[in-house]
Amino acid sequence: MTDPDLHDLLHRVRDGGLDPAAAADRIRMALRAAPFVDLGFARVDTHREVRQGFPEVILGLGKTPAQIAAIAERIVARGQTLLVTRATPEAYDAVRGAVPGAEYHPDARAITYAQGSVEAGRGTILVVCAGTSDLPVAEEAVVTAAVMGNRIDRLYDVGVAGLHRLLAEQERLQSARVVVVVAGMEGALPSVVAGLVKVPVVAVPTSVGYGVSFGGVAALLAMLNSCANGVAVVNIDNGFGGGCMASLINHL
Amino acid sequence: MTDPDLHDLLHRVRDGGLDPAAAADRIRMALRAAPFVDLGFARVDTHREVRQGFPEVILGLGKTPAQIAAIAERIVARGQTLLVTRATPEAYDAVRGAVPGAEYHPDARAITYAQGSVEAGRGTILVVCAGTSDLPVAEEAVVTAAVMGNRIDRLYDVGVAGLHRLLAEQERLQSARVVVVVAGMEGALPSVVAGLVKVPVVAVPTSVGYGVSFGGVAALLAMLNSCANGVAVVNIDNGFGGGCMASLINHL
Amino acid sequence: MTDPDLHDLLHRVRDGGLDPAAAADRIRMALRAAPFVDLGFARVDTHREVRQGFPEVILGLGKTPAQIAAIAERIVARGQTLLVTRATPEAYDAVRGAVPGAEYHPDARAITYAQGSVEAGRGTILVVCAGTSDLPVAEEAVVTAAVMGNRIDRLYDVGVAGLHRLLAEQERLQSARVVVVVAGMEGALPSVVAGLVKVPVVAVPTSVGYGVSFGGVAALLAMLNSCANGVAVVNIDNGFGGGCMASLINHL
Amino acid sequence: MTDPDLHDLLHRVRDGGLDPAAAADRIRMALRAAPFVDLGFARVDTHREVRQGFPEVILGLGKTPAQIAAIAERIVARGQTLLVTRATPEAYDAVRGAVPGAEYHPDARAITYAQGSVEAGRGTILVVCAGTSDLPVAEEAVVTAAVMGNRIDRLYDVGVAGLHRLLAEQERLQSARVVVVVAGMEGALPSVVAGLVKVPVVAVPTSVGYGVSFGGVAALLAMLNSCANGVAVVNIDNGFGGGCMASLINHL
Amino acid sequence: MTDPDLHDLLHRVRDGGLDPAAAADRIRMALRAAPFVDLGFARVDTHREVRQGFPEVILGLGKTPAQIAAIAERIVARGQTLLVTRATPEAYDAVRGAVPGAEYHPDARAITYAQGSVEAGRGTILVVCAGTSDLPVAEEAVVTAAVMGNRIDRLYDVGVAGLHRLLAEQERLQSARVVVVVAGMEGALPSVVAGLVKVPVVAVPTSVGYGVSFGGVAALLAMLNSCANGVAVVNIDNGFGGGCMASLINHL
Amino acid sequence: MTDPDLHDLLHRVRDGGLDPAAAADRIRMALRAAPFVDLGFARVDTHREVRQGFPEVILGLGKTPAQIAAIAERIVARGQTLLVTRATPEAYDAVRGAVPGAEYHPDARAITYAQGSVEAGRGTILVVCAGTSDLPVAEEAVVTAAVMGNRIDRLYDVGVAGLHRLLAEQERLQSARVVVVVAGMEGALPSVVAGLVKVPVVAVPTSVGYGVSFGGVAALLAMLNSCANGVAVVNIDNGFGGGCMASLINHL
Amino acid sequence: MTDPDLHDLLHRVRDGGLDPAAAADRIRMALRAAPFVDLGFARVDTHREVRQGFPEVILGLGKTPAQIAAIAERIVARGQTLLVTRATPEAYDAVRGAVPGAEYHPDARAITYAQGSVEAGRGTILVVCAGTSDLPVAEEAVVTAAVMGNRIDRLYDVGVAGLHRLLAEQERLQSARVVVVVAGMEGALPSVVAGLVKVPVVAVPTSVGYGVSFGGVAALLAMLNSCANGVAVVNIDNGFGGGCMASLINHL
Amino acid sequence: MTDPDLHDLLHRVRDGGLDPAAAADRIRMALRAAPFVDLGFARVDTHREVRQGFPEVILGLGKTPAQIAAIAERIVARGQTLLVTRATPEAYDAVRGAVPGAEYHPDARAITYAQGSVEAGRGTILVVCAGTSDLPVAEEAVVTAAVMGNRIDRLYDVGVAGLHRLLAEQERLQSARVVVVVAGMEGALPSVVAGLVKVPVVAVPTSVGYGVSFGGVAALLAMLNSCANGVAVVNIDNGFGGGCMASLINHL
Repeated sequence: MTDPDLHDLLHRVRDGGLDPAAAADRIRMALRAAPFVDLGFARVDTHREVRQGFPEVILGLGKTPAQIAAIAERIVARGQTLLVTRATPEAYDAVRGAVPGAEYHPDARAITYAQGSVEAGRGTILVVCAGTSDLPVAEEAVVTAAVMGNRIDRLYDVGVAGLHRLLAEQERLQSARVVVVVAGMEGALPSVVAGLVKVPVVAVPTSVGYGVSFGGVAALLAMLNSCANGVAVVNIDNGFGGGCMASLINHL
Repeated sequence: MTDPDLHDLLHRVRDGGLDPAAAADRIRMALRAAPFVDLGFARVDTHREVRQGFPEVILGLGKTPAQIAAIAERIVARGQTLLVTRATPEAYDAVRGAVPGAEYHPDARAITYAQGSVEAGRGTILVVCAGTSDLPVAEEAVVTAAVMGNRIDRLYDVGVAGLHRLLAEQERLQSARVVVVVAGMEGALPSVVAGLVKVPVVAVPTSVGYGVSFGGVAALLAMLNSCANGVAVVNIDNGFGGGCMASLINHL
Repeated sequence: MTDPDLHDLLHRVRDGGLDPAAAADRIRMALRAAPFVDLGFARVDTHREVRQGFPEVILGLGKTPAQIAAIAERIVARGQTLLVTRATPEAYDAVRGAVPGAEYHPDARAITYAQGSVEAGRGTILVVCAGTSDLPVAEEAVVTAAVMGNRIDRLYDVGVAGLHRLLAEQERLQSARVVVVVAGMEGALPSVVAGLVKVPVVAVPTSVGYGVSFGGVAALLAMLNSCANGVAVVNIDNGFGGGCMASLINHL
Repeated sequence: MTDPDLHDLLHRVRDGGLDPAAAADRIRMALRAAPFVDLGFARVDTHREVRQGFPEVILGLGKTPAQIAAIAERIVARGQTLLVTRATPEAYDAVRGAVPGAEYHPDARAITYAQGSVEAGRGTILVVCAGTSDLPVAEEAVVTAAVMGNRIDRLYDVGVAGLHRLLAEQERLQSARVVVVVAGMEGALPSVVAGLVKVPVVAVPTSVGYGVSFGGVAALLAMLNSCANGVAVVNIDNGFGGGCMASLINHL
Repeated sequence: MTDPDLHDLLHRVRDGGLDPAAAADRIRMALRAAPFVDLGFARVDTHREVRQGFPEVILGLGKTPAQIAAIAERIVARGQTLLVTRATPEAYDAVRGAVPGAEYHPDARAITYAQGSVEAGRGTILVVCAGTSDLPVAEEAVVTAAVMGNRIDRLYDVGVAGLHRLLAEQERLQSARVVVVVAGMEGALPSVVAGLVKVPVVAVPTSVGYGVSFGGVAALLAMLNSCANGVAVVNIDNGFGGGCMASLINHL
Repeated sequence: MTDPDLHDLLHRVRDGGLDPAAAADRIRMALRAAPFVDLGFARVDTHREVRQGFPEVILGLGKTPAQIAAIAERIVARGQTLLVTRATPEAYDAVRGAVPGAEYHPDARAITYAQGSVEAGRGTILVVCAGTSDLPVAEEAVVTAAVMGNRIDRLYDVGVAGLHRLLAEQERLQSARVVVVVAGMEGALPSVVAGLVKVPVVAVPTSVGYGVSFGGVAALLAMLNSCANGVAVVNIDNGFGGGCMASLINHL
Repeated sequence: MTDPDLHDLLHRVRDGGLDPAAAADRIRMALRAAPFVDLGFARVDTHREVRQGFPEVILGLGKTPAQIAAIAERIVARGQTLLVTRATPEAYDAVRGAVPGAEYHPDARAITYAQGSVEAGRGTILVVCAGTSDLPVAEEAVVTAAVMGNRIDRLYDVGVAGLHRLLAEQERLQSARVVVVVAGMEGALPSVVAGLVKVPVVAVPTSVGYGVSFGGVAALLAMLNSCANGVAVVNIDNGFGGGCMASLINHL
Repeated sequence: MTDPDLHDLLHRVRDGGLDPAAAADRIRMALRAAPFVDLGFARVDTHREVRQGFPEVILGLGKTPAQIAAIAERIVARGQTLLVTRATPEAYDAVRGAVPGAEYHPDARAITYAQGSVEAGRGTILVVCAGTSDLPVAEEAVVTAAVMGNRIDRLYDVGVAGLHRLLAEQERLQSARVVVVVAGMEGALPSVVAGLVKVPVVAVPTSVGYGVSFGGVAALLAMLNSCANGVAVVNIDNGFGGGCMASLINHL
């Protein structure tokens, strides 16, 4: 039961559209629900939506398709929205069996199934990326933020070696309420962007690169050492984390 | 000329308290000002307040007291608020010579001199730290956020080895608009806090620890790997960065 | 000849159930046995059971199925209990040829064949893990401790992002004699658990995670830096080591 | 109120030596006591003794002598035993002002002040070290385990380059209930010791060495990679952690 | 005997200003000179000027003032130009004793003594640095390149967080024949500069920063991973290396 | 429109071979062209040739064959020269579909398609490599420099363990205008070469080696620590970067 | 022409078995031979046997079977002994085509073809290894030392967790002239062996292990930090290097 | 009782110069001597000379002057030769009190006191170093090898940037029986030397350098990755280890 769900229900009571006793039943049922479901190999944190505003998200990495499908089924059965990240096509096949309407986003390697109402973010989240190879991570941020109720704008392939591509988009930069910047290799883009805007920048390093990019460590270090203000960083390739942090900020 | 400065000026024009011609002069003067001042060894970015809502901040580390004082003088001369981080008492002596009213915060190792009006943050920033040794970094975050116009609440020494100290403060946790969590050693506190709140958590690792804390790297890695949602991280011991990111979020 | 074997034999002598001469023969034979068997490519340490209370365990990693089967056969032939860790299904096929009754534990990737009597551990070993993906390592600890004569309790998927899942199980936590905590990513769980219990915690970092989890190094560092008392750590993914250490403690 | 304290009190009630009402008062007072004391810069976890069998221990590193003395005073005032590790002589001077009877152990760099009764460990803890330079860390383990109620045996300077020094002490090795092995440089000693005994080995790497000892990292890695069973490891130079883990095991 | 020395000498022969026999003597003397001078603790590579166009340079780091002075004396005695880098004031005192006219450059921590003629570089070397704290390294590059015969232009404190400071200097950027870019922290400046110019960029990372700047490693990695073309990198804080490489390029 | 293109055009105007109006049209068309082309997943930096003397180069790594082909087609359509590095045979198949005349260089793993005129480099670039396994990286440098208009000389398999192989080629070493040295393992070759020549050395570490070569890090460190003057370094296996830097130098 | 070849030839001259003129021809031919053969992609160092006592050895890693076969053919054609390390079965197939009599050693992953006479080593080289998984590296050392003319003794699977297996072989340890010790995981064996013998120990770390063995780095560090005297170390998995160093020592 | 001591004694018996009974007494006394002396903080391994040919050496690092003097006194009292490495002048003062004739070698930071006869090494040990700053480590190797009975030749400051300084000394290189090569920075010298000689090379990396020399790690890696045969490596700055290994080889 999300905050908007509760809000709707109470308004319907006030407006006479719902009987107080029926409303009481529904609220009581939600309260009675255990805050987790024990599947043996997993304890689904069904309480998370209440605590954090969005249900538990499944990280597909290191789980079998069957495990993912079983957890997904339980989340959907409770009326919550589903998000699976790092999902292989095989995982999608398994999930689709359990959750027929689930959707697959191949660029983002994510599965979603939206239900119930979600509180809308206040402004636009701008997702910026440095190069074409950063696309999967950027798209994971996009899908995450979108399913969490945010309006998204994309600005892709504007790496610092050709600054004019970024400087040409000042207007879109200035109109965002929070910016997610995705970059691999030398990871300089968040510093440059944060020097141009007045809003928080969430930096997402990617593993794009070779040699001493060390799988994204070089980009991560650059972002943590940023000489610009208002930059905070998430794990390498963690598009989900970037999108989620941006959504929390955009919902304030 | 901050946004509130401009806002005041225009309202005074509308209300008849200020002659349009005089207002025009002042705005023209602000526009005419070069966006940086060249001191030879430094180009003070006097334009930053317009671009980012707060003037350039001086990182004391690696600069001589004389260099710090010279840059500080120039910032204050332009009517901007001063913040020097990582300032030694020697640096403070030099700055006080150039900026008589400057204040020193020994716990935070920071110098401030506030002037002009600053836009107030919307809610409260809660600064949490894990242990007594993390205090200097936490205080740097506090001083930074305070000078940028935010209301601050402190919750110190609530490390995960004695969880009841944190769980006893649920109310303060829930009433913050953004939380800055400062921790060294195993860096677990941001994950636990982020599991309890619905707002963004800015995690600041500290160099507190020994052996394989590796000067804060262990805490940093733990925070970047957080299994909780809504955590973004700044550099080790970067209390300033944490406070600044929190302030940007709290001003949205 | 395990300690309980010897104990049985001597009691049977005292009780008249065994002739002293026959007993002497058996003991002499055990003494005469060389403390290792040379297979050319391996010197099976057949003496280890006497020295350490459990026979030599075969680490499957880096050995061919044929090598594993040959060593396994020798251990079983001496009447000792067999444990092979990191065993592939191919290794199991080879072992089953040499040791028909051998059992495979796919979750734990382990082969066992129990024989003789084993001294029972005093209390219960609680095996806790943070997420579903840590399961293979947790199960390796379980199989190891079980074959060494311990009673096991499992508490899975109770990571710190949803603390209530752990706090709901205080009773099971308090009733364990030793706790094995298995976690990847930020590795915070052992610190939290050790803050709640009075018994030793053996922490097992796992390679679960991505980016700067660095294959489990982040979790390992967090565990070594634990601010809680009574935590000691084994190698990444070393469920065997965790189970074995817990068994030694539980047999005191 | 330690377990033995409670035990004494209840026996005195049963034996008529204490009035039930008076006993009830004392227990109620202990229950009423807040589980932590807020000093502003520190929240002393006064509840830890109940939860973990030993009061909060002060890590001297990174705290001022005045902070240490203030926390120490509060712990002693509640009738609990004091242990400060990594304490400089200056810290001791400050503590002695607040806690007159406090004792300083210069080799171990520790301050202690024992009061109340402590539950005795079951057997002997053997503290082994590889070289003379490892002595401060070994002594920290000794002081820690001693103040927690354990009988200690020391076996120093028995590094693997002269194995006969260790092999000559088989009897003492065999009579320990738990062994703490302290070693720097190549860190091989815990593996060798664990191959000779049947009880748990707590390995403490030290920063002794130069070049690629990397401040103890080489020894730590060797210990985590030990080919012997029954070895678990604590942080580099963490004599306290080694002594504490050994004490928990020895109290089972 | 530098190339210009030889050139002068032969022109003077052609022009009749020098007797062929006298010229032959001088050339023979230069040829006869051993290619190194053995001081016991050092073999001064007196031949380097012939081979590489500039005499051996003394790295002051790790040498005693007396050793530096002895080597310096030998180089000057052979008529060659002296450059000592990483020279303390104490080293300068010792050198001045042996080489009276030697000059000290405190910002650059360098000693120079020029003699003979040096071939002039073709164009201007532009030395750019990101922040005030990078100044010592930038100045080392400047002194090095200057003593090697190059015209220098300085552009300091133009870090990427305030891009307009750099973009305002397009003309100076375009008129350089080679650019040396000195930066610490996130090390993004060389990428941005290289995206704006058509000439080689020599990137010099500095140890300016804290936390995960890792003493300049973060900046180094960023520079090696640069997405811009035409960037090559030297060691951290190696202003000499940067200036020397730029000089070699500028002399082509 | 490259510099030589413009040069040709204006000479043809001066010589009467081209009507001023027609020339003006062509120039205007080039000026009118947007400085980048937005393909959605990529913003092709079509302006780079003007800014940097060579069109944008496609790094094949991490892009799909279809993405590579689409970008390649756009570059060629604008009359620019194509270079794709790290191109698989599959990528070549895709590119050949879009750019029929494209050529594949299997040793260098590169695709090229030259058109228009290119400014010739002044001297010869000598590409040296230490061993046979370094060949792919050396060839990438060769193809890069060749397509950029340089004359190339190759000197392969002259590692320092058999110095005579290098010393036998003094003449070729001395006649180069810039030297690219490619080496893995201990990476000593650039230091030795730079000690023998008077021109800039661009060092390219390779991932050739095993164990503590750490994928080329050992070679990279050796090159950055070179005791010889005039060495600058690019990323591991970055033959393109080495060739490109050499070409920029050779075009001065 | 090896030293023994030359020795034979001169003795045959002295003994009248060979005509001085014929001998002169042969020596002249050897002298005339160029010190390397240029294959384009490789310069075979045919002079190495004269300089170092053994012909150039081919490291199979990173070379194609065709490249290996071409180099092998050239070495054999000059009458030299062939050794290829890290050779796949595919490489062997290619080599066998060019050098029909070549032999494959699958355990050691090596190809050999011996011809000419080789100087015999003075004593026995003892190759010791810690576990069965270290066998491929130990065998590479054995094959290398054997083809270089040494007598070998093998002592396998004597890791420090069961010291009695090693102590039982004191006699073989004492009768070696040089010992090669091969170990992975914690790498303690060389320290223990060097504490027992009087001769040089060449330590070879292997990549055997998992988690924080870091592919052999833990073992390498342990060996470099050995508290025993007379240990020197080669690269991880470098059985060839260990065997070669031992052979050079054994030939003194 | 060294081997030469025993040899002398038995020859004197054979020659009638010593009574068999008196000889027996002396041998018995040596045998009776415990193999170590327990000083509480140290177990002096007095047996090491018998086992390894040289008495226990004291590593001064991490020991107090008083501890060093006490151990030194015991070694000298047993008639053994003393060697203390990494000895400060303060340590020397303390040792001189206990061992009046002890000698200090300031360049090598070592204390020696020779007594009894020592077996002479067979040939000459050549100690080579790359630069003047490597001198302390090279001298530690020299003092170590000298006190162990070897003839030494020194070849200093012959780094690879000026190869002719090394090539000029071919004769001395060829006449050594074993070569110790000491180098910091890029650590290339051992590879070059090993390519020129036929005898074992013991490589000693030093911490000379800055930036990415990482305190000698770069040099160490280069040496372990050497493409030349017959190189084995000891710890960074371990001149003692290099000298000791060379002495063991030279005594074969």
